[in-house]
Amino acid sequence: MDIANKIRLKNVEVTSDFWKRYRELVVKEVLPYQWKVMNDEADISISEDPQNNGRDQNSHAVANLKIAAGKMSGHHYGFPFQDTDVYKWLEAAAYSFGYHPNADLQKITNSLIDLIAEAQDDDGYLSTYFQIDAPERKFKRLQQSHELYTMGHYIEAGVAYYQATGNQKALDIATRMADCIDDHFGLEEGKIPGYDGHPEIELALSRLYEETGKQKYIDLAHYFLKQRGQDPDFFDKQNRADGWDNDILEGMRNLPKSYYQAAEPIIDQQTADGHAVRVVYLCTGMAYVARFTGDKDLLAACHRFWKDIVRRRMYITGNIGSTTIGEAFTYDYDLPNDTMYGETCASVGMSFFARQMLNIEAKGEYADILEKELFNGALSGMALDGKHFFYVNPLEADPAASKGNPGKSHVLTHRADWFGCACCPANLARLITSVDQYLYTVNGDTILSHQFISNKAEFDDHVEVVQTNHFPWSGDIHYEVRNPEQHAFKLGIRIPSWSAKTEIAINGAIQSLPVKDGFIYLNVTEKSLVIDLKLDMSVKIMQASTRVESDFGKVAVQRGPVIYATEETDNQAPLWLYKVSPEAKTTYHYDKTLLNGVGVVQIAGTRTSLAEDGVPLYTPATKRVQDPITMQLIPYYAWANRSDGQMRVWLNS
Amino acid sequence: MDIANKIRLKNVEVTSDFWKRYRELVVKEVLPYQWKVMNDEADISISEDPQNNGRDQNSHAVANLKIAAGKMSGHHYGFPFQDTDVYKWLEAAAYSFGYHPNADLQKITNSLIDLIAEAQDDDGYLSTYFQIDAPERKFKRLQQSHELYTMGHYIEAGVAYYQATGNQKALDIATRMADCIDDHFGLEEGKIPGYDGHPEIELALSRLYEETGKQKYIDLAHYFLKQRGQDPDFFDKQNRADGWDNDILEGMRNLPKSYYQAAEPIIDQQTADGHAVRVVYLCTGMAYVARFTGDKDLLAACHRFWKDIVRRRMYITGNIGSTTIGEAFTYDYDLPNDTMYGETCASVGMSFFARQMLNIEAKGEYADILEKELFNGALSGMALDGKHFFYVNPLEADPAASKGNPGKSHVLTHRADWFGCACCPANLARLITSVDQYLYTVNGDTILSHQFISNKAEFDDHVEVVQTNHFPWSGDIHYEVRNPEQHAFKLGIRIPSWSAKTEIAINGAIQSLPVKDGFIYLNVTEKSLVIDLKLDMSVKIMQASTRVESDFGKVAVQRGPVIYATEETDNQAPLWLYKVSPEAKTTYHYDKTLLNGVGVVQIAGTRTSLAEDGVPLYTPATKRVQDPITMQLIPYYAWANRSDGQMRVWLNS
Repeated sequence: MDIANKIRLKNVEVTSDFWKRYRELVVKEVLPYQWKVMNDEADISISEDPQNNGRDQNSHAVANLKIAAGKMSGHHYGFPFQDTDVYKWLEAAAYSFGYHPNADLQKITNSLIDLIAEAQDDDGYLSTYFQIDAPERKFKRLQQSHELYTMGHYIEAGVAYYQATGNQKALDIATRMADCIDDHFGLEEGKIPGYDGHPEIELALSRLYEETGKQKYIDLAHYFLKQRGQDPDFFDKQNRADGWDNDILEGMRNLPKSYYQAAEPIIDQQTADGHAVRVVYLCTGMAYVARFTGDKDLLAACHRFWKDIVRRRMYITGNIGSTTIGEAFTYDYDLPNDTMYGETCASVGMSFFARQMLNIEAKGEYADILEKELFNGALSGMALDGKHFFYVNPLEADPAASKGNPGKSHVLTHRADWFGCACCPANLARLITSVDQYLYTVNGDTILSHQFISNKAEFDDHVEVVQTNHFPWSGDIHYEVRNPEQHAFKLGIRIPSWSAKTEIAINGAIQSLPVKDGFIYLNVTEKSLVIDLKLDMSVKIMQASTRVESDFGKVAVQRGPVIYATEETDNQAPLWLYKVSPEAKTTYHYDKTLLNGVGVVQIAGTRTSLAEDGVPLYTPATKRVQDPITMQLIPYYAWANRSDGQMRVWLNS
Repeated sequence: MDIANKIRLKNVEVTSDFWKRYRELVVKEVLPYQWKVMNDEADISISEDPQNNGRDQNSHAVANLKIAAGKMSGHHYGFPFQDTDVYKWLEAAAYSFGYHPNADLQKITNSLIDLIAEAQDDDGYLSTYFQIDAPERKFKRLQQSHELYTMGHYIEAGVAYYQATGNQKALDIATRMADCIDDHFGLEEGKIPGYDGHPEIELALSRLYEETGKQKYIDLAHYFLKQRGQDPDFFDKQNRADGWDNDILEGMRNLPKSYYQAAEPIIDQQTADGHAVRVVYLCTGMAYVARFTGDKDLLAACHRFWKDIVRRRMYITGNIGSTTIGEAFTYDYDLPNDTMYGETCASVGMSFFARQMLNIEAKGEYADILEKELFNGALSGMALDGKHFFYVNPLEADPAASKGNPGKSHVLTHRADWFGCACCPANLARLITSVDQYLYTVNGDTILSHQFISNKAEFDDHVEVVQTNHFPWSGDIHYEVRNPEQHAFKLGIRIPSWSAKTEIAINGAIQSLPVKDGFIYLNVTEKSLVIDLKLDMSVKIMQASTRVESDFGKVAVQRGPVIYATEETDNQAPLWLYKVSPEAKTTYHYDKTLLNGVGVVQIAGTRTSLAEDGVPLYTPATKRVQDPITMQLIPYYAWANRSDGQMRVWLNS
């Protein structure tokens, strides 16, 4: 029997202490908390949420479904995409059943599926805002409606729920939605030659295709990607027909077409422009469709956008989106640390994109970025208590600035209870509960192990890969490969770009193996194999390209994949008075009592004293006295879990 | 006869080459150009003006007056304060007659006075927006109406025009306006217990009082200052009565009360908050009224605001306003160089405030700041050609950022033809044409000569002070005092704070004189006196207080009062790659062929090379090679007069 040409991953059990804590936190705190919020039963405050726009504390997301299902009366409340909060939560719950079966929760989710089925129109349509309050405007203002975005999120949830529980109704709702969309969109006579203002349906249809094998779904996804931007006036034409001033979301009409990635066809777009979440959702769909269809132009666009984001527009933490205006990318190398956006959802979406690129190509860079998001930019979106969230993830924060400078009012210095636009909390929850799906990429006869998150993975025919470590605090990575039936397959293990020297031992013998595109490869034929990596876990003082003005003359601290931050709690404010040289001495220790256990870095530097208040602002320059001090840094993802205060990642040098 | 107790300034002739050029430029270019613009006869583009809000190229300001006068039909066009463009222009023209009599122009201005008189209502009211399009809303929405602001600007112009030409009608319009306002405002039964959303009327009434001596005008100004903020809900009450959503200027309703300096009474306000122009116009009114009434609480507030602005919220160029959102102050020591506002009008208003404080107290700091504005922050608002203007004056600019980052789209990197909200060009024009009034402060028997702008000043009884110099390029200041009737008076000469050592010679003999609050004093009794100052004109490398995060680790260059800037035209971009040490070597030379003649500074520094494009953004830090280079700097006021490019005042150090 030849499994070498096709090996299949059956199950992954995450055993990492670090991730198990988060995954159980989602089960214990995040899912119950978010369910309460969506049912308007939580005691929350969103008054300080800058995205709130004066809405009150209710989510009303479940109530909207009940009204659409005819089980309640009333009006729709919230954003037109309010339904997606429920769907992302449902998807997160579905994943959680894989590692934490939960009959009580499953009763709730099964009922929720029933409710959603009842809310769905006979023709498969489901978007409660339009069903309840604007049925005559269905698909009439796609620039702002988020209808395909909303249904896309259900399709993702439905597929995941079906895969987790076998609930056929969950999948049927999804296929009926997709069929409805297929009936309405396309270049054929009588169909809408358009697409949604917010990409998402493309990746959702790809997942549905992956599950059902129905060609029409991947064709429809492909259509959306090819059609996007072909007629840059499509949205405006719809808006005019729907009544120019009749906005669904005020002000969106005035955003540039690039905000929606609709200024030109994808294959002509050279840079990753516009709303960052839209971009990475679009890229994820592009990567799916490129893989399933072999569309080379689409793949080239994936490469182009990947490079533009990762090499020119990404913060060292993996966060993306340099401006709050449009929650958007700005221009190459523009990475301000204090006025930036860095939306949690954008880092979650970047993880999706990276995962899909790994499915196409075995390149370590994709896994490096995935790891960067998992341990930094995405993870920082949630407090250690699982009940507070960041929408915006700055690299430099100051409570005085957030309060006193309106250009920084979008930057919170402590995580909020909830948001009027609550896209981020459940998005992060679904990433964490599905992290087991992000550890391996299997292509043909090759298993790629690209994340150092302890786990036990089972493949076809009793092949097992067991990874044990205390990553990200320790770089000692232990693998045991069990292959009782002695099948022949390749095992690729990623050598992270941050590990300057990596020791590799096979069955205890140190070996020198070539690194190809960020991976070493072993041809496995034996019954068992023990592999040990020693990754370079020295503290690295990092610098940015000199093309980045905002980081010029500054350094950041990284150890393994973890980016570090200074906080006022540990270092007397103001933090800008500190200087650290590129050759500064550092020490590292693990503190199990701090922030649920974190590696702490101390770094030698100097501090200039704070000038007196009220004296002349500008004086002839003198060499200022710099007192030697030691700064303490904690992992970026764990900042803002103690008292409110200044934080910065990039330190003056 | 005893003139010693009261000496009066009769005339000042500005002989400074530097200022004569600007003053003639206003006569030759600025006034004719602005007159054309206001009559919709100029070929201009305001499409790139970020304040434009989609308005077209027409000013319509004169047409509005014609419609109000019944000489034309049509609707009002432009901002509700569009009239003020005309009034500020008229004021500038009036001042210009003092040094450049111009019969042709005076024919125009006399006719303009006639037109304004015809536009004025019988009861003295004049605000064309309300007269033409909303007569039922007069004084009903003062938060946004700018009615008193608008009439205040006429009053200033009317007084100036009367003083320059003796045109009684011009003054009568002003007194009828003031009487109208007096009839409508106050705490008496039946009057409006309020004030304007934009301070200006307070300083205008003070000028009218100064000219007419009528107590009711200064009383009314005093009332406005005392009443301001007493009922923080005043504006909202009016808005509700006028129809909450019935905004005159969209969005203004949502600005905080501090934007209007209306959150609390002035005497309780601790910091200079809100819209920067409003603050300095208010402060100017406060200083006038404090002087005329002896109100000590008001004077204390003047001191408090002065200190907060100058010591905590002012850029080294004199610019103020740290954020574009509300064109406002933010919080103490928050002075970002790239997202700032620094409106030209705010620097003009700061000059007014400084002048009024000098009228109260002989303190050099006021004259230092006045000089800073004249040679830097205010002057940079106009191009050397007199036909292009800045509304926003940044200390760091980059065309790529202005185009690519919407948080910086308000920052232009070249001066615009005109603005939809055209407050700045004429405001600067009236400052330049009246600069002769900013050189001396006369109190009792003391003449303060506090600006080093060559001039010939005539006082009572044939006393003359003639100042000759090539300032700001040379620090050799030559005075000849002529006192043929040998009156006894005191002459105070300012020793600028930037002059570390100043040599003073009286009739050729070097003397050591005590400096009191920034002035040296001479008791003059002789028939003639020659005074020579040698100011310290060495190039100074400056630093900011360590409380200013944005300038930490940076230096700026100053020579005399002139702040210097680096431009891409002279120094290969990007400018952030350069470093200059606090002890860097500098050279200075005057280049008569450059930018109409400027002093040029060269400074030794280093430059790091620009990284390759598209390589990994973040790498372990290394000491970067710094190549020795020489930077060339030009005066800040003269930037953006050559090609479009990067500019920065604060250099990395």
